[in-house]
Amino acid sequence: MKRLRILVMILSASALVAAQPPTIAKVREWRTQHEKAILGELYEFVSIPNVATDAPNIRRNADALARMFERRRFAPEIVPTAGTSPLVLAERRLPNVRRTLTFYFHYDGQPVTASEWMYEPPFKPVIVAEHSDSEQGRTISLDTWQGGIDPQWRIYGRSTSDDKSPIVALLSAIEALDAANIALTSNVRLIVEGEEEAGSPNLEAAVRDHADRIRGDALLLVDGPRHPSDRPTLNFGSRGIMNAVITVYGAAHDLHSGNYGNWAPNPALQLAKLLASMKDDAGRVTIDGFYDDVTPPTAEEKQAIAEIPDEMPMLMKAFGFSRPESPDRLELRHNLPTLNIDAFESGGGTGGQGRTIIPAAATARLDLRFVKNVDPAKQFERLVAHVKKQGYFLVDKEPDAAMRAAHPLLASVTRIGGYPAGRTPLDAPIARAITKAVSDASEGKIVRLPTIGGSTPFYLFSDVLNVPTIGLSIVNFDNNQHGPNENVKIKNIWDGIETMAAILTMP
Amino acid sequence: MKRLRILVMILSASALVAAQPPTIAKVREWRTQHEKAILGELYEFVSIPNVATDAPNIRRNADALARMFERRRFAPEIVPTAGTSPLVLAERRLPNVRRTLTFYFHYDGQPVTASEWMYEPPFKPVIVAEHSDSEQGRTISLDTWQGGIDPQWRIYGRSTSDDKSPIVALLSAIEALDAANIALTSNVRLIVEGEEEAGSPNLEAAVRDHADRIRGDALLLVDGPRHPSDRPTLNFGSRGIMNAVITVYGAAHDLHSGNYGNWAPNPALQLAKLLASMKDDAGRVTIDGFYDDVTPPTAEEKQAIAEIPDEMPMLMKAFGFSRPESPDRLELRHNLPTLNIDAFESGGGTGGQGRTIIPAAATARLDLRFVKNVDPAKQFERLVAHVKKQGYFLVDKEPDAAMRAAHPLLASVTRIGGYPAGRTPLDAPIARAITKAVSDASEGKIVRLPTIGGSTPFYLFSDVLNVPTIGLSIVNFDNNQHGPNENVKIKNIWDGIETMAAILTMP
Repeated sequence: MKRLRILVMILSASALVAAQPPTIAKVREWRTQHEKAILGELYEFVSIPNVATDAPNIRRNADALARMFERRRFAPEIVPTAGTSPLVLAERRLPNVRRTLTFYFHYDGQPVTASEWMYEPPFKPVIVAEHSDSEQGRTISLDTWQGGIDPQWRIYGRSTSDDKSPIVALLSAIEALDAANIALTSNVRLIVEGEEEAGSPNLEAAVRDHADRIRGDALLLVDGPRHPSDRPTLNFGSRGIMNAVITVYGAAHDLHSGNYGNWAPNPALQLAKLLASMKDDAGRVTIDGFYDDVTPPTAEEKQAIAEIPDEMPMLMKAFGFSRPESPDRLELRHNLPTLNIDAFESGGGTGGQGRTIIPAAATARLDLRFVKNVDPAKQFERLVAHVKKQGYFLVDKEPDAAMRAAHPLLASVTRIGGYPAGRTPLDAPIARAITKAVSDASEGKIVRLPTIGGSTPFYLFSDVLNVPTIGLSIVNFDNNQHGPNENVKIKNIWDGIETMAAILTMP
Repeated sequence: MKRLRILVMILSASALVAAQPPTIAKVREWRTQHEKAILGELYEFVSIPNVATDAPNIRRNADALARMFERRRFAPEIVPTAGTSPLVLAERRLPNVRRTLTFYFHYDGQPVTASEWMYEPPFKPVIVAEHSDSEQGRTISLDTWQGGIDPQWRIYGRSTSDDKSPIVALLSAIEALDAANIALTSNVRLIVEGEEEAGSPNLEAAVRDHADRIRGDALLLVDGPRHPSDRPTLNFGSRGIMNAVITVYGAAHDLHSGNYGNWAPNPALQLAKLLASMKDDAGRVTIDGFYDDVTPPTAEEKQAIAEIPDEMPMLMKAFGFSRPESPDRLELRHNLPTLNIDAFESGGGTGGQGRTIIPAAATARLDLRFVKNVDPAKQFERLVAHVKKQGYFLVDKEPDAAMRAAHPLLASVTRIGGYPAGRTPLDAPIARAITKAVSDASEGKIVRLPTIGGSTPFYLFSDVLNVPTIGLSIVNFDNNQHGPNENVKIKNIWDGIETMAAILTMP
């Protein structure tokens, strides 16, 4: 009976307007009284440079986190990894709770080029009012400001969105609940990584080594922006990824295009044909078996996507193109494996005087993304089989004279890295509970993504740890994540605090 | 009757062994007595650095040439051009001659990287015995050498082959004939360019300005290597050339391949498909009308090609590929217009960590070559029409938001430079006379190329000046022209002197 009620509510989340629970009102009241302090904590945290290669400052970030956690009665520990950035683990154990929830964040940020920042340098946070992409906004000093804080203002600085505000939002929610004497319904565990922007090279080992201190009834992977509709966004999976580099070999060295052009084979043309053979005009990958292992979306997953506001016309306008590869909506496309050309190159450059040559080789770098049930190794084999089917003999290094004499078409296909997708069923009981809590806190207006398009270490938690994992995004979509002028809209921090409070107090 | 006799001889040049005229024996005798002096003159000339951007040394080359010409009773003049390298014009007028022959050479050389030269620096000529590509040869000092000179030895140095030896060969031939009191049958005019390796940017203007001092009954364009068979090589045309740069536009900036891959269009894939659409698997360009204006080879041109020793298996082995684009022989392919990909690029590079993006644009640089009767402007229009036919809307700069919103496929196609082919009929009377003279001097073993594959300013002489023009190549095929370790085989200089003498004394 109860299960049915939840199901009905979820399926029609956008139609129903759920009443906000009284907890949320109390948390909001506390927040309105502490806005400058909350932002002050974020300012202090953002002021510590956090590029993963900057070991001393990375350590300062970890130390600052430990102090922030201690203030909220967590027991933190700074745990070394095989890399330069330690992991920060923390736990707050409570009596009489229903479960343990683990929150994942990361404290490192993308490299910065200070000269590209419009206002202050990347590690000097600043409020900008009247934000606009085309015009300079008005900056406001948090120290001296006496008036109210407009939630439409933004804070600029590296990692304001990715991923420091979400940490501050969680801690502020806990502080607000503590202040209002509202009991948390879960133990809370924290895992904060310091190498996410460097590709999490040591996360798997750390997760395996410290599994018992990370595991919980659910893991919330708090990172990334909300859906462009700016609704609180939950995702239940992320795609895996692998790179593949294909090189097609022509003559052993560049040849004069006048003396030998249109007689000697041109590997740039051969590679163009090979790449063209991999996808049809409707954006469907034509490699045999490419979609064979894909589990089609469930009825509920389709419904979740159908309920998401369609922001595609806005995106196409913002990005500057008028026809997508496929008319299917983006969020549906995310449920398929992909093949994308990241880069290609051949010859001596297309600019300037140029060189009239038949290049000796041509290279493309692809990324392939995977959805649940698609095995990276198997998918790579399918790519290899496709290249062979086009007549290529595959080599694992620059071919020698004997290989060149024996095979008219020569290529190498190299796999780089790769990990699988992770996915949590929308109808897992803990997923239902978290969904309801987040939905209630925002009056039913949420976005549920069965999977995101990007690739995160989701599978480490969902598959290696075997913990139901859910992605939660609270920051604004247009946050310039990874680039210069990264920012967070203050309203998203306020909303985030309420979302966190709802999860921490869910029945 | 006489015409018929010549025709029969030409058509079966490789079958008949013509007797060498007595003139050749006398020239050879003089040469055997002056070998060190001939090479000494070449040494002195090669010792003057001749990169076109090095104005003071370029001037020294021009001055040296003027002195070399004066020694053989030419009246030289150093003629400024709009560039940094002057033209050297010279004439030797004689009484009672049958005609005027003009010889074109160039005195500048390709840029050098001294560290890449195996023996001496590029402007310090040196003889190398026991030449081999894989092993270091023995060097010989011309100054101190007392023994005979082996014609298989080579002289290393920039422009030994390209194009200083041919000048020395002509002047030595004249000196030999003068010494033997054998009268030249033609006035001789010389035009020596100093910017050939920089693309002859000022040659057309100079040719037009000084047309009356350059024109002759025939112009011999003496440059480039012999056919790989190492027979004296005459060519009767060269292809024209044009570059075209095609850019396909995707989104206005790079997009995250996880968030938007397989939904947003990928211009690298679009460009791959566009390039793939331009040529079929048999190497035939599929652009409408691409071959429409081609004049098929005449029976004699086909016969000339059939008589050329087939060096393709050797070339394919040397270059390291086992299947050409077309089974037709290379020299036949040279009689067709071409489309070749010189370079393409898209994204942030294929090496290292890479970036998982959908690139904003993709660019290819092509070269198109033309044969006689194919108009560069018309051929460019055909390329443009082909791109349009694939659905592209063409822009002439980075598209703006309105263009992006209106057109699903956007590209730019830019033409760079371009000039047409030049061609002289094999059966033009002066062509017949020169062919016979060169053939007789080498006992019938010559190569006649109706056109070369490369592009030279041939058309400036054949079409702008309207003078029957013939390319003559005397240096060895494997001369490392344009690269480090450029060299000339001494035998090719000796042969060249005889070839020149035959032309200068032809009836």
